[in-house]
Amino acid sequence: VTWSGRRRGSTRTGRRVGDSGAREAILSASRAQFAEHGYDGATIRSIARDAGVDPALVHHYYGGKEKLFAAAMQLPFIPSEVITAALTHRDPSESLGTHMVRTALSVWESAEVRDAFQTMLRSALTSDHAAATLREFVTESILRPLASAADGGVAERTPFRASLVATQMLGLALSRYVLRFEPVATASAAELAAAVGPTIDRYLTGDIDDAQP
Amino acid sequence: VTWSGRRRGSTRTGRRVGDSGAREAILSASRAQFAEHGYDGATIRSIARDAGVDPALVHHYYGGKEKLFAAAMQLPFIPSEVITAALTHRDPSESLGTHMVRTALSVWESAEVRDAFQTMLRSALTSDHAAATLREFVTESILRPLASAADGGVAERTPFRASLVATQMLGLALSRYVLRFEPVATASAAELAAAVGPTIDRYLTGDIDDAQP
Repeated sequence: VTWSGRRRGSTRTGRRVGDSGAREAILSASRAQFAEHGYDGATIRSIARDAGVDPALVHHYYGGKEKLFAAAMQLPFIPSEVITAALTHRDPSESLGTHMVRTALSVWESAEVRDAFQTMLRSALTSDHAAATLREFVTESILRPLASAADGGVAERTPFRASLVATQMLGLALSRYVLRFEPVATASAAELAAAVGPTIDRYLTGDIDDAQP
Repeated sequence: VTWSGRRRGSTRTGRRVGDSGAREAILSASRAQFAEHGYDGATIRSIARDAGVDPALVHHYYGGKEKLFAAAMQLPFIPSEVITAALTHRDPSESLGTHMVRTALSVWESAEVRDAFQTMLRSALTSDHAAATLREFVTESILRPLASAADGGVAERTPFRASLVATQMLGLALSRYVLRFEPVATASAAELAAAVGPTIDRYLTGDIDDAQP
């Protein structure tokens, strides 16, 4: 008996069986759904249907839309988890902003993270549709947990505060790792945390209405 | 007598004559030289040679390498001129940072500027070589005049200060115009200048060594 070239894990009808077949089918269906309907428009139900699996299996393997998107985009971490961890586990002698910059810099040390960042940004610069998907994902996965951090300090204009934080962190990542502006590209994490941390603190909880410093 | 299909402004030997022919030849030669040798490596002399014109004509038409690069990249303004103007013509009741944010926001109102920004950024995300060219141009045309602004305040670590300003301004442009994170995308220029201006002021002349705000 030979397998006559058939891939392991596929049946004759094309329906995937087995663990890795189902996982691959889910990832491939989710890439198509995110590309077509954006982050907000895609649903676990429609991804499961396209993959020919039960929605419960998608939840079982990936735990939810954010994690599924991260897996589909080969993001090696879940942004909201990193932000929530940064908010909870910190040395109280360090300001929240400084701690967040240090956390982000250590996440960005990974070449995988930088590749995923660069790929998503390139797509967003090439297509409005991809930009919308990235915007929706960042809003859900990054701006929302950030806004809750701002909320703990002053309970006003938190979405604006969160998006200000995003402008600074995004520009820092782009300048340091992609465009490599000097000396930001080679500065130490401690130098950058000291310089940029107070910006993040002010955006999250400080005075953002006064034109005079 | 017919022109037998020959383009106006070209001689039989291929050497360009006439105003627009020479300008086009210079732009086309400069794009090739910048692409091959980067911003720092390309010279007016080599561009003139490739275009088959005298270097003096390149200076006459374009005034120097920065302006030539801006023309080749279809940048509708010269960054160093905008920065120098922002540094000199400002209402003394407004902080320098606030004024710079307001100036940048008004420059970015132009769709041409945003298109040029997006094109250069896309190239930089696609090729290390293009990223190096953009880095060299930004260093010369933006970071250098910015560092001289910082220098007027505190004469230390000015290159680091200028590159910090670049991280914030780049992230602001990307978040507001390309990724359109809300509410930064729809906030008024006055709101953004009030929120981000003090960041620019601190980066240029404030305390950037203290981890505590």
